[in-house]
Amino acid sequence: MDRQPLTIADKTFTSRLFTGTGKFGSAQLMEDALLASGSELVTVALKRVETQNSQDDMLIHVTHPRLNLLPNTSGVRTAKEAVFAAQMAREALETNWLKLEIHPDPKYLLPDPIETLKAAEELVRLGFVVLPYCHADPVLCKRLEAVGVAAVMPLGAPIGTNKGLRTIDFLEIIIDQSQVPVVVDAGLGAPSHAAAAMELGADAVLVNTAIAVSDEPVRMAMAFKLAVEAGRMAFEARLARPSLTAHASSPLTAFLDE
Amino acid sequence: MDRQPLTIADKTFTSRLFTGTGKFGSAQLMEDALLASGSELVTVALKRVETQNSQDDMLIHVTHPRLNLLPNTSGVRTAKEAVFAAQMAREALETNWLKLEIHPDPKYLLPDPIETLKAAEELVRLGFVVLPYCHADPVLCKRLEAVGVAAVMPLGAPIGTNKGLRTIDFLEIIIDQSQVPVVVDAGLGAPSHAAAAMELGADAVLVNTAIAVSDEPVRMAMAFKLAVEAGRMAFEARLARPSLTAHASSPLTAFLDE
Amino acid sequence: MDRQPLTIADKTFTSRLFTGTGKFGSAQLMEDALLASGSELVTVALKRVETQNSQDDMLIHVTHPRLNLLPNTSGVRTAKEAVFAAQMAREALETNWLKLEIHPDPKYLLPDPIETLKAAEELVRLGFVVLPYCHADPVLCKRLEAVGVAAVMPLGAPIGTNKGLRTIDFLEIIIDQSQVPVVVDAGLGAPSHAAAAMELGADAVLVNTAIAVSDEPVRMAMAFKLAVEAGRMAFEARLARPSLTAHASSPLTAFLDE
Amino acid sequence: MDRQPLTIADKTFTSRLFTGTGKFGSAQLMEDALLASGSELVTVALKRVETQNSQDDMLIHVTHPRLNLLPNTSGVRTAKEAVFAAQMAREALETNWLKLEIHPDPKYLLPDPIETLKAAEELVRLGFVVLPYCHADPVLCKRLEAVGVAAVMPLGAPIGTNKGLRTIDFLEIIIDQSQVPVVVDAGLGAPSHAAAAMELGADAVLVNTAIAVSDEPVRMAMAFKLAVEAGRMAFEARLARPSLTAHASSPLTAFLDE
Repeated sequence: MDRQPLTIADKTFTSRLFTGTGKFGSAQLMEDALLASGSELVTVALKRVETQNSQDDMLIHVTHPRLNLLPNTSGVRTAKEAVFAAQMAREALETNWLKLEIHPDPKYLLPDPIETLKAAEELVRLGFVVLPYCHADPVLCKRLEAVGVAAVMPLGAPIGTNKGLRTIDFLEIIIDQSQVPVVVDAGLGAPSHAAAAMELGADAVLVNTAIAVSDEPVRMAMAFKLAVEAGRMAFEARLARPSLTAHASSPLTAFLDE
Repeated sequence: MDRQPLTIADKTFTSRLFTGTGKFGSAQLMEDALLASGSELVTVALKRVETQNSQDDMLIHVTHPRLNLLPNTSGVRTAKEAVFAAQMAREALETNWLKLEIHPDPKYLLPDPIETLKAAEELVRLGFVVLPYCHADPVLCKRLEAVGVAAVMPLGAPIGTNKGLRTIDFLEIIIDQSQVPVVVDAGLGAPSHAAAAMELGADAVLVNTAIAVSDEPVRMAMAFKLAVEAGRMAFEARLARPSLTAHASSPLTAFLDE
Repeated sequence: MDRQPLTIADKTFTSRLFTGTGKFGSAQLMEDALLASGSELVTVALKRVETQNSQDDMLIHVTHPRLNLLPNTSGVRTAKEAVFAAQMAREALETNWLKLEIHPDPKYLLPDPIETLKAAEELVRLGFVVLPYCHADPVLCKRLEAVGVAAVMPLGAPIGTNKGLRTIDFLEIIIDQSQVPVVVDAGLGAPSHAAAAMELGADAVLVNTAIAVSDEPVRMAMAFKLAVEAGRMAFEARLARPSLTAHASSPLTAFLDE
Repeated sequence: MDRQPLTIADKTFTSRLFTGTGKFGSAQLMEDALLASGSELVTVALKRVETQNSQDDMLIHVTHPRLNLLPNTSGVRTAKEAVFAAQMAREALETNWLKLEIHPDPKYLLPDPIETLKAAEELVRLGFVVLPYCHADPVLCKRLEAVGVAAVMPLGAPIGTNKGLRTIDFLEIIIDQSQVPVVVDAGLGAPSHAAAAMELGADAVLVNTAIAVSDEPVRMAMAFKLAVEAGRMAFEARLARPSLTAHASSPLTAFLDE
């Protein structure tokens, strides 16, 4: 139903909902939810791939023709660690796509702008398709774009907080200025948040926690799918702007006086 | 996709998106948008019906097997006027369903709590199925319920402002307390707003302006349809609560040290 | 520092911060906080006056030349009970000023619009100076004004929630339309909330819980005093409006190029 | 009235309101407003100092025993330009204090995290007392702290927008983590915004536009002074936390039944 599909680097996506593999109750539940979401890009922590064992047969459950894997570097704290992790991921998962995440801070898990830019530059040079997770910092996003990232992934709110679009003033500027796709990542805790990001003009959103930890991940995945489509459609059909004065939908002449 | 359909009085609805007929560019555009919305209940201003002429063949365009008409009393300023208008509407449109709207104030079009309660009581006595539009006032909603209304329609924001759920603290209480369906009306300017109302636990929403005045009403109607479904699903699958501290979706052990 | 003092009925106030007597740790602490607040109008629950005993010598502690008492009808559930309570209060406290509060609902303590209007009309007729606590409902406020209340006291948020100005869209309309002073009551949990209400153009605010339950009520009372003065001054000096684009405070010519 | 004065590097401040010199209608108005604000630290654009002429005798008007000057590098776009500008400022204004501002973007004037960190490191090495203006990015703030800045100055909203604390979720984290004073800069458009920043635990705020462009800058300066004091006091006296359910300030037993 979407007018123009989303293209990032060499791939074209029908779905603008990206998902993740963390925190699901079971691998089967995860697989069912990912399929229900309609997502075509799913992020996978390299760490989890590295430590695969018979209990965590996660990779089998994300191996589907429609699903593209997006390894992430979650757990690294510096550009150097990120570059090393990226190379391991490329080998293990046979893709040069990479979600670059560098968060030195174990409490709030916020990304490091300096290390992220440094790593992005190096990884682009090494042939990776880099999608960096970053603060909703418009200048940083432009600098990441300048070193050749394929998209930027600014956060909506601190990861895992489910607070929604708390960075909206800055996302607006990022979307206004960006020459590469903008994927809102982190903090989207409800379908309405995802719809709001799309209405703002984001090219896609990434949702993981809110789907994985809900009472019914499959149903929640479907809800996010619909909400992302709704938000995108509304963006394309142009929303009316908020107004300060009331305007009746119905005619208001006090006809009974007539 | 909805688990339990919505029942109001003697009617059961599959769609939880109610719509209106005001402000569309043409009657044909209105018809197309209403059908695209999937809506099964559409509000019509009695005034407009009364003054029907060859130019405004609106009624023809809302005559569909799936569409139930909900006449509204927009334009009246007192309980007495409302009761009179309701009787005219019942005769003209052959339905005892009524959206009760009393707004004496021509600037902000906000509903009058006193006249609304008085009219509701009388109209219930006269056999109407009354859905009153009202302020998001929890005590008023309980009083309306006590006189026998079929649902309550508290406002999300001043009508036509497109501001979204500005009364959320009070809607939460209304939804918590109500024994009749709660339909959020007025102010919903974007699909994300409609989704948010449904996530909160509203039984339905009424949207008119945001669809009618968008650049592409048909597409916007579809967007609201999806958003309402998304919000309802999320409510049923129980959203995670916002949290104050971050929680990673991906494992965070600094594995490169190991 | 205020340009025009506030006049309600026959009294003129230098301070625009009204306070209350509930929830303080001790009567002495209450007295100290009330004096520190600079408040000239303090609300007292009739119930508490009625049940005065040697343990709760509260009345002694609010007997100061500067403090005017504003008995309230907290605890009543109907207009009839309110009128009876008002008469008891007038006799016990020797004032015809009255804060009219009618909340039938023991959980959320929200005011009843119907009973409040009915009682206000009767109490005005009986010679009371009536200040009704009400929902932030602009039409209700105009109706209360029409029956002769001395001021309206719309709520900022559900009482005791400390959430701040959650009804701001409606307070703006109330302030725009009102011919009597508007006192924002309930929900103001921080000095910044009180300042915001004053910046909006409220004539005064009433704060009780946030002062009484803080770690240091005297200090918190002073904080609210300053914040109310700050907000009023800003209202008088006219705030700049929020803008969508940035404007530098400092000159931005890239002078190093020159 | 403040319990503990604010110390930054070698200076101690009684006032926690920092101000600026831009956008005032006249130098005399600026002087009057700065004095009314009680501010002890005022930022001055180097560019303006450099181009001083008889029309803009601004420097004379900020030469007061109580006022410390804080030259800023507004207008520079790189770390290299910033270091050069800082050295010029040190010579011209005879102070090694510096507000480091690097914004390459002429439209939104947002600071560059990479250049800012680079310049901060160099300027600390060169003996400057560096107060960098930066995005409300908690990781960046910690990195700036690590290279030895004297305080961090995260933004509340895009400069000149008067939107208030739009970065509150991140300011909370910055304040929680910081070992150096946190001065909220940019976007504070009303005294209530300044109070809210102080209530959150900020050590100081910097306000310029909202004072300079108001109808009455002197009065507005006083309003901000009071609001900052109010917010600080409330922070020290510990605010009650927002609550989800109502709690009456007045006793609620339905005493009339007894």
